[in-house]
Amino acid sequence: MQSRKLALAAGLSLLAALPAFTWAQSKSAHPGTPEEEMRYKGAPVPIKPEEAKETLSPKAPPLSADEFARAKQIYFERCAGCHGVLRKGATGKPLTTDITLKAGTEYLKVFINYGTPGGMPNWGTSGELTEKDIDIMARFLQHEPPTPPEYGLKEMKASWKVNVAPEKRPTKKMNKLDLENLFSVTLRDAGEIALIDGASKKIVAIIKTGYAVHISRISASGRYLFVIGRDAKIDMIDLWMETPAVVAEIKVGLEARSVETSKYKGYEDKYAVAGTYWPPQFVIMKGDTLEPVKIVSTRGMTVDTQEYHPEPRVAAIVANHHKPEFVVNVKETGKVMLANYADLNNLKITEIATARFLHDGGWESTQRYVMMAANQSNKISVIDTVEGKQAALVEVGKIPHPGRGANFVHPKFGPVWATSHLGDETVSLIGTDPKKHPKQAWKVVQTLKAQGGGSLFIKTHPKSKNLWVDTTLNPETAVSQSIAVFDINSLDKGFKVLPIAEWSGLGEGAKRVVQPEYNKAGDEVWFSVWSAKNQQSAIVVVDDKTRKLKAVIKDPKLITPTGKFNVYNTQKDVY
Amino acid sequence: MQSRKLALAAGLSLLAALPAFTWAQSKSAHPGTPEEEMRYKGAPVPIKPEEAKETLSPKAPPLSADEFARAKQIYFERCAGCHGVLRKGATGKPLTTDITLKAGTEYLKVFINYGTPGGMPNWGTSGELTEKDIDIMARFLQHEPPTPPEYGLKEMKASWKVNVAPEKRPTKKMNKLDLENLFSVTLRDAGEIALIDGASKKIVAIIKTGYAVHISRISASGRYLFVIGRDAKIDMIDLWMETPAVVAEIKVGLEARSVETSKYKGYEDKYAVAGTYWPPQFVIMKGDTLEPVKIVSTRGMTVDTQEYHPEPRVAAIVANHHKPEFVVNVKETGKVMLANYADLNNLKITEIATARFLHDGGWESTQRYVMMAANQSNKISVIDTVEGKQAALVEVGKIPHPGRGANFVHPKFGPVWATSHLGDETVSLIGTDPKKHPKQAWKVVQTLKAQGGGSLFIKTHPKSKNLWVDTTLNPETAVSQSIAVFDINSLDKGFKVLPIAEWSGLGEGAKRVVQPEYNKAGDEVWFSVWSAKNQQSAIVVVDDKTRKLKAVIKDPKLITPTGKFNVYNTQKDVY
Repeated sequence: MQSRKLALAAGLSLLAALPAFTWAQSKSAHPGTPEEEMRYKGAPVPIKPEEAKETLSPKAPPLSADEFARAKQIYFERCAGCHGVLRKGATGKPLTTDITLKAGTEYLKVFINYGTPGGMPNWGTSGELTEKDIDIMARFLQHEPPTPPEYGLKEMKASWKVNVAPEKRPTKKMNKLDLENLFSVTLRDAGEIALIDGASKKIVAIIKTGYAVHISRISASGRYLFVIGRDAKIDMIDLWMETPAVVAEIKVGLEARSVETSKYKGYEDKYAVAGTYWPPQFVIMKGDTLEPVKIVSTRGMTVDTQEYHPEPRVAAIVANHHKPEFVVNVKETGKVMLANYADLNNLKITEIATARFLHDGGWESTQRYVMMAANQSNKISVIDTVEGKQAALVEVGKIPHPGRGANFVHPKFGPVWATSHLGDETVSLIGTDPKKHPKQAWKVVQTLKAQGGGSLFIKTHPKSKNLWVDTTLNPETAVSQSIAVFDINSLDKGFKVLPIAEWSGLGEGAKRVVQPEYNKAGDEVWFSVWSAKNQQSAIVVVDDKTRKLKAVIKDPKLITPTGKFNVYNTQKDVY
Repeated sequence: MQSRKLALAAGLSLLAALPAFTWAQSKSAHPGTPEEEMRYKGAPVPIKPEEAKETLSPKAPPLSADEFARAKQIYFERCAGCHGVLRKGATGKPLTTDITLKAGTEYLKVFINYGTPGGMPNWGTSGELTEKDIDIMARFLQHEPPTPPEYGLKEMKASWKVNVAPEKRPTKKMNKLDLENLFSVTLRDAGEIALIDGASKKIVAIIKTGYAVHISRISASGRYLFVIGRDAKIDMIDLWMETPAVVAEIKVGLEARSVETSKYKGYEDKYAVAGTYWPPQFVIMKGDTLEPVKIVSTRGMTVDTQEYHPEPRVAAIVANHHKPEFVVNVKETGKVMLANYADLNNLKITEIATARFLHDGGWESTQRYVMMAANQSNKISVIDTVEGKQAALVEVGKIPHPGRGANFVHPKFGPVWATSHLGDETVSLIGTDPKKHPKQAWKVVQTLKAQGGGSLFIKTHPKSKNLWVDTTLNPETAVSQSIAVFDINSLDKGFKVLPIAEWSGLGEGAKRVVQPEYNKAGDEVWFSVWSAKNQQSAIVVVDDKTRKLKAVIKDPKLITPTGKFNVYNTQKDVY
């Protein structure tokens, strides 16, 4: 930390000596969402830089073809996550040429080299980029951004495979698995998922998937498991087969985060939907084969300034229970799209104006209102899925990151939904019962203090009295390796800390504790202890009643486990 | 014609000597819609080339900054109308760099120089471009297309002016004009409209507007007149003032064609809407001030191949009478958008998949179904505005261009709606009465042969038995200067020809007869005899019953009259 501070100071004093140039005011000091965080580490990106069209801008300083290629590669790997592929800004500032040309090469070099207190990493002084690379990047940024290729129906169909046709699949469950208590676990850097039996804690199957599976979702019937990689590859797994396996697969774009399936009555298992970061769009597919049917672009106007945004990425998608609709979060424009799948040729979409930048979210307990986090606006948008409109926009803490959030009955204020935050240590509890608790509805009724910032997930269960808050991205090792747990009936008493990583019994390594997930019964909580690819990881299971260690799942095949999805809880949106 | 043929032959033999390269098959031999036609003549274009971002593509042959600037100018003036600003193709073929780089400079030069039988003009052999310009254009087309600037809320608001605030306007009609029989006449090249009294045929006012007003529309109450120029400037005229004048104005983009106002019960005069060619979007404004409220992008996926289109231009817009909706034709994607204006913060849009490339259209007689022309697909899409879906897609003649079409009761088949065509001499009559004539509904029940191709407008009136068909863009002077008229009760007997241009008594000049328009009573038809800006034009009024000349309107101020809009017929959608 000390060397970073010194580097920053040197950078800032250099800045003072340069001609005046004002960047847009930073909105946050946070290093980004988890996937953006991973980008910092130079993780491979799904977008292939060589596919992006190259253009040179006559007004910008010259760049050779080799330099352009190198800069594109670095940009997509390290910069695009925060600044956007087309540099319009999101977590990071905009880097469009109207800004960068005015800034000039020397100015840009300083920023890249030293970073900023606003969250820009110090690429030079950290040793991650050479002086030459920084010079190339500073010149590259003054040219128009190369645009990655589009990805339409033709490309999707070319990637689409049905490994087992619907008529060749079993007509009943052929295995003895307790499917409802099965866990689908992302093995992030292995490009796999593990299916783990909830009772025995044994790995039932390891299945090859796309890279860095972001989430698992379960079809309305509970039969099909859908996983999507960051490379936008979807695998559809039939849990009825003797050994569950991939029956259909498709690549729906170049980079993605979200998949969901239709849950409205009469449409169970009928459609799947996936949203992509690039291209900015979502696609509705047949629920039994993944055949792509309808692609919808999300490019459009931002919610506040109403200016065109070329890259509004699709974040979380949930399935409406009250209408045949998918609820689609569009990050950069700050809009929630309700896409009605009842008639795809005459497609009805309700575009709800909320706030930037929409990310994740989940249902309150009645499953009528869905709570969506606009993370850079520090707001939760409450979407009424019966009326098809925004019911409220609630100010919360800094950079809410609820995952799907946590629902419980507050002893004083009645039903609430909770989110933790990336940018501060608080947990915001929002009243969710407009009928019996109208005064509290859509207001923050209580703010708890947990361990620290960098929280990714918060969790409880209808049968539990515990509220779990992780702090995966907290810079302090002790904090990122432990969990805070509140007693819902005594929230004012503060939290207890459980040393999950220590309990895992793993050796050295930058292991982070991430994502509490309940079993079906609601009497166990599972935590990932996530280490590097070449180190051992584990899943720690805690008894919910006693808060004591119940089991540690370790296996050489359990490489970099992150998200865990209990089939029943995911299928029924229990959280 | 002879020299063009020779030039083509020379071009084609040169092509044969060049390496094989296949262009996408041409769909049409027509020179384009009227506005595209005007582009051929090098008419000034609203988009300022100097505002478009310049980029050079390393793989393309070099181009100096001066050459780039010159090429941009020529492209926007002469090529963009057919090929699209971003060169994705519409009436003209796509000219994206994946195609042009393979074609190469020599190949492209041949096409530009000699044109093609498919409708590409012979820019070189016609003398309109020099050899040097053609060489520049051939190289320019191998670089990525420069993108014109976006135009969002900020730009709109900067251009917005309320000349007379609503509270300062009269509370009742202050003039003695018979407003319902007033005509709003586009004076195309003067950047003006003329208001002409229907009874006296006298010019009541000449009002400065945007360039080349495309259409006039009347608010639901009949009080406000909206006109939009090709430069996307809207002028809102208060017809209640002692002398009608512009009370509000705004520029909604760089290039536009359509404006409309809300007509659903409870929303009369509440909103206006305008669609733009660039940027590809539409904007909903307050109906009394033109204050821009909501901008909606039309960029998205094409209807058939579901690939992303960056430039889906907004063509005709009509106001639904059954719901608070605007019906918006999106040309390049082939989609009709039903935009519901009841709740702009939770905006409901139904996106109906029809066919490419949507252009103009109008209501059948009951005003439940709107008939939209997909001109390059030779189809009419029947939109059911009660159900919010496509009722049928009807194959018609070559490049339908109905304007708003013509409704009448066919002696044998009952109610029909008619369109004429740009690409052939036919008139297609489509049955429009699914209740009493279900067999004929949404089928072509009869095809008439009129004078020739190049028709822009067809017209009748509920009180008339005449069906008028113009042939404005027909290459034969005798045909473009006259009108065909059918007797609705004896369609099989063919048409009579009236020599409208001759009746005007104008002297020499390439005068074209365009757009029959009825007066309110339905007993007179007005025709524009449209000459060049520096020549005299006229409006010829024909007695509908006798088909004899009734009056000729001539005035030095009547410069290049084209579209004429009778207030009552436009307000009530009578056609």
